[in-house]
Amino acid sequence: MRISVIGGGTIDEEDTAVAHRVGELLGERGHTLVCGGRTGVMEAACRGAKETGGTTIGILPSTDPNEANAYVDVPIATGIGNARNVLVALNGEGVIAIDGSYGTLSEIAHALDFGRPVAGIASHDVAGVETVETPEAAVKHVENA
Amino acid sequence: MRISVIGGGTIDEEDTAVAHRVGELLGERGHTLVCGGRTGVMEAACRGAKETGGTTIGILPSTDPNEANAYVDVPIATGIGNARNVLVALNGEGVIAIDGSYGTLSEIAHALDFGRPVAGIASHDVAGVETVETPEAAVKHVENA
Amino acid sequence: MRISVIGGGTIDEEDTAVAHRVGELLGERGHTLVCGGRTGVMEAACRGAKETGGTTIGILPSTDPNEANAYVDVPIATGIGNARNVLVALNGEGVIAIDGSYGTLSEIAHALDFGRPVAGIASHDVAGVETVETPEAAVKHVENA
Amino acid sequence: MRISVIGGGTIDEEDTAVAHRVGELLGERGHTLVCGGRTGVMEAACRGAKETGGTTIGILPSTDPNEANAYVDVPIATGIGNARNVLVALNGEGVIAIDGSYGTLSEIAHALDFGRPVAGIASHDVAGVETVETPEAAVKHVENA
Repeated sequence: MRISVIGGGTIDEEDTAVAHRVGELLGERGHTLVCGGRTGVMEAACRGAKETGGTTIGILPSTDPNEANAYVDVPIATGIGNARNVLVALNGEGVIAIDGSYGTLSEIAHALDFGRPVAGIASHDVAGVETVETPEAAVKHVENA
Repeated sequence: MRISVIGGGTIDEEDTAVAHRVGELLGERGHTLVCGGRTGVMEAACRGAKETGGTTIGILPSTDPNEANAYVDVPIATGIGNARNVLVALNGEGVIAIDGSYGTLSEIAHALDFGRPVAGIASHDVAGVETVETPEAAVKHVENA
Repeated sequence: MRISVIGGGTIDEEDTAVAHRVGELLGERGHTLVCGGRTGVMEAACRGAKETGGTTIGILPSTDPNEANAYVDVPIATGIGNARNVLVALNGEGVIAIDGSYGTLSEIAHALDFGRPVAGIASHDVAGVETVETPEAAVKHVENA
Repeated sequence: MRISVIGGGTIDEEDTAVAHRVGELLGERGHTLVCGGRTGVMEAACRGAKETGGTTIGILPSTDPNEANAYVDVPIATGIGNARNVLVALNGEGVIAIDGSYGTLSEIAHALDFGRPVAGIASHDVAGVETVETPEAAVKHVENA
């Protein structure tokens, strides 16, 4: 499966550990990780996925593919700014949200609008999101949906 | 001011009346209404705005400007699908949300991400949205923010 | 009709006069001018259109509506960068190109791809473009197509 | 390098052979092929690249990743229609154009606008494009630029 991991660009140690573990699980289980390609949740999750042999795609807001974090295998530059959030939501068959502010909320909303299952860990608790406690439960939710 | 009005494409009589009244107020008060250009909240609000002398802009998902409802003065065809939600949020200096599902939630999130004030009537009650009871209170909130 | 006017953002006096005259003609003849909203051909054409009572729409690359030139009535901020060229081409029922470099060529190509008639004055002489000598001939071509 | 291959969606046997050979060369030489993900030149080039061990990225106009041809490794659904042409041009460090109509011309123009080297085989002969006779010459041009 392709699974999008979304969340804050600036995060604390705990969320970093959660995002890293989500990435590890995706890599272990043979999934491809899709994300916005930048820092915070995106970088920690990509790093985890690379450590367990996963593949990572980063869909970037700017025209510069070098804006991607060091753990992105396939950077896609867009130059369409926040409209790239729609593409991040669209290109996962399921979405895992960790923390995050309004940009993350927009990705959750677009994902739900596209009919994607969304699991959230310490993220926005809106109708349609399955709020879970652990990376394992998040991955399980999107795998089974 | 330019004020975006967002909400469901299929709505009941009550929400239609609310959206229509929001449009009337915007027209009366000299504001330009920005919306997604289609049915439901968008159409009722545009109709209200036209009845009180307002101007209406409809930013459409498809490539067809004729997709706009009959009360849109300036249809902008985009062909970028749901990514046009970003433009709807962006082009108002403030946003009024009425009812609505995930598409509306995405517009709320993009608006908050762009730092716009958002008032909601029977809409998504997320952090950052000023939930109000009446069209008058909604217009007042975005005017004063 | 809505007619898009496209061309260089930095132009000489002669092209400025041509663009200004195209704008005047569009205003005189009751057309709405669509453009990229910025400097050069866009600004001169908008200025001409405003002097003869026309309406002007500027579809901007950035998220800032204030990026529009002083003669744009309806600025549409997009934040999608060069992808906004597609929207400029799309929103005219016909297109007039004056001078211009690769950005203008992309708008010509998108316009032809959407089946729009394109007249060019001292612009790209590609198959499908009607190359003409005067503003009058350009307007006539897109009106009659 | 990442190299974009662009061209007609419906092509004859000769152009199919040319596109296939371009793909083979890109795969042989360790490049990643970027394209619009669909039929014609895109499909023949992806097929060639896969036969020589290359990696292929397809940036699609619709929201459906299954719209990609069978030789695309990484489909990116966009839902932004023709605006995805900008992303196809942007994500190659160089561009090879084979045949093609106005959509291809738009991609050439966007690529030149982004400062990318463009080689054309039986394609649009506009200023800025290096027109060449063979797949080998095309690949050499973008490698050396």
